[in-house]
Amino acid sequence: MNHSLNNILEAFNHMINDAIEDSTLNTNLEKSMRYSLEAGGKRIRPLLLLSTLKMLQPESIEKGMKTALALEMIHTYSLIHDDLPAMDDDNLRRGKPTNHKVFGEWLAILSGDALLTKAFEIIASDDTNSAEVKIKLVQLLGQASGHLGMVGGQTLDMQSENQPISLPTLEKIHSHKTGALIRFAVEAATIIAQIPQELSQTLIRFAEHLGVIFQIKDDLLDVYGEATEIGKPVGSDITNHKGTYVTLLGQQNAEKELSQHVNKAESILKDLSTSYHTNDLKVLLDLFHQRHH
Amino acid sequence: MNHSLNNILEAFNHMINDAIEDSTLNTNLEKSMRYSLEAGGKRIRPLLLLSTLKMLQPESIEKGMKTALALEMIHTYSLIHDDLPAMDDDNLRRGKPTNHKVFGEWLAILSGDALLTKAFEIIASDDTNSAEVKIKLVQLLGQASGHLGMVGGQTLDMQSENQPISLPTLEKIHSHKTGALIRFAVEAATIIAQIPQELSQTLIRFAEHLGVIFQIKDDLLDVYGEATEIGKPVGSDITNHKGTYVTLLGQQNAEKELSQHVNKAESILKDLSTSYHTNDLKVLLDLFHQRHH
Repeated sequence: MNHSLNNILEAFNHMINDAIEDSTLNTNLEKSMRYSLEAGGKRIRPLLLLSTLKMLQPESIEKGMKTALALEMIHTYSLIHDDLPAMDDDNLRRGKPTNHKVFGEWLAILSGDALLTKAFEIIASDDTNSAEVKIKLVQLLGQASGHLGMVGGQTLDMQSENQPISLPTLEKIHSHKTGALIRFAVEAATIIAQIPQELSQTLIRFAEHLGVIFQIKDDLLDVYGEATEIGKPVGSDITNHKGTYVTLLGQQNAEKELSQHVNKAESILKDLSTSYHTNDLKVLLDLFHQRHH
Repeated sequence: MNHSLNNILEAFNHMINDAIEDSTLNTNLEKSMRYSLEAGGKRIRPLLLLSTLKMLQPESIEKGMKTALALEMIHTYSLIHDDLPAMDDDNLRRGKPTNHKVFGEWLAILSGDALLTKAFEIIASDDTNSAEVKIKLVQLLGQASGHLGMVGGQTLDMQSENQPISLPTLEKIHSHKTGALIRFAVEAATIIAQIPQELSQTLIRFAEHLGVIFQIKDDLLDVYGEATEIGKPVGSDITNHKGTYVTLLGQQNAEKELSQHVNKAESILKDLSTSYHTNDLKVLLDLFHQRHH
């Protein structure tokens, strides 16, 4: 990671430590919320939002902080709920015990609910953006993360387990389950910076390539990565009979597909580089597809 | 219920049937969301919001419809998650099989998540209110339903099970777990109608009495009601060793406490009746404390 992204990451992680105030109820709820929120993810969604915003409008980066936090809360709640015994039944996440392993199942459910709720409250309470901008962000985050987006994709994923799926179904799962939040990261930056529609569309296309790159890479890492790098047992997708880019396309074609999306994303950045400093986004793109290094 | 409240209820139930559009993913998610949302609750929170708004500003009642829908979605998601095996493990809700009994545990978790998310999206997409009003509603709903409100109260409730609790703890549980959304119903109406602070505070006090009335009545019904009326086995609070107003105060004192809050709520309505048509709220108050009839 370069110096500029490191600075953003540091500011973000600083903010996240004070993100959840204790209630007067004296329960473990906030502790459990913080456990997962601070569990040391790579923060790629907040970094993507903030570096896109910085590229578009360097002076406005502060206006993206709370939305980036909200986005990470949504991502975090989805991991807590996905890990539950009734869902993927995972014991480890990012190399640490999953939330329900530490706090118990019922508190993990409630912590997820509370993080999800907090995300919207935080955008609404953000005093750096106008009410108009904030309402657009709430609406977009709702669409990206709810039944039309992430939760819908997770449902299709669960429903497709232990049965053969087609490539179009796989693409549908991932464009919703992981793609929607990655797309939100970029689109939120365009809303906060209030840039013209056409540039916004270009950046959203970049985000869509990123989403696919993220998933193909994830599938490749599951087969060829090392457990310490991915934080879960190698080969768990195969053991769980999950349809993946690797099982559907084979390693070689999956890597070819990956390259094509990387090329398209790079080409978008190259066009943008005549008017903008695209370096941070280039570094992020590399992080997305070189995660095994 | 009087004619006026019946009209409101009819309009609300009509809207709720079209509230959730299908996604293109072709899963059972929306079906499961609708199952619980349309399961025929009494809609007391939407009725409270809409009748308060109607009292304050009859011509603005349309402006409250989407927020009332969002509120019912939050209430519904909380019931789905509360009924899960890891929480209260209930098989029946409103006399029908609980969501996870019909759709399975993982889909019940995701349907709850999706309803919770949809609530905020619906407020943000409501074109009858200004961005300023909508942002206030999102912020308030987040506070009322998240770790500082409903989810916090549910956490304290779960944490207090199978151990003796004090009356102050019981009051804390309920002011958060059920009181916060009842209060939101009234406060949301005051935000939409944009009325002066002082009147708003008076109405919020009314809502706080309603919240306590609701809970004491619930506890009395659990011991002295009939299963068909409350939709769960009579005496389940005692079997589950839950602290309630009845177990802590005894029947007589619980009924006395109930009467005192009813008197205070009636007195607020009497004062308001010099300037407003308080009849609908009076009928609602009666519904709250005469549920056994």
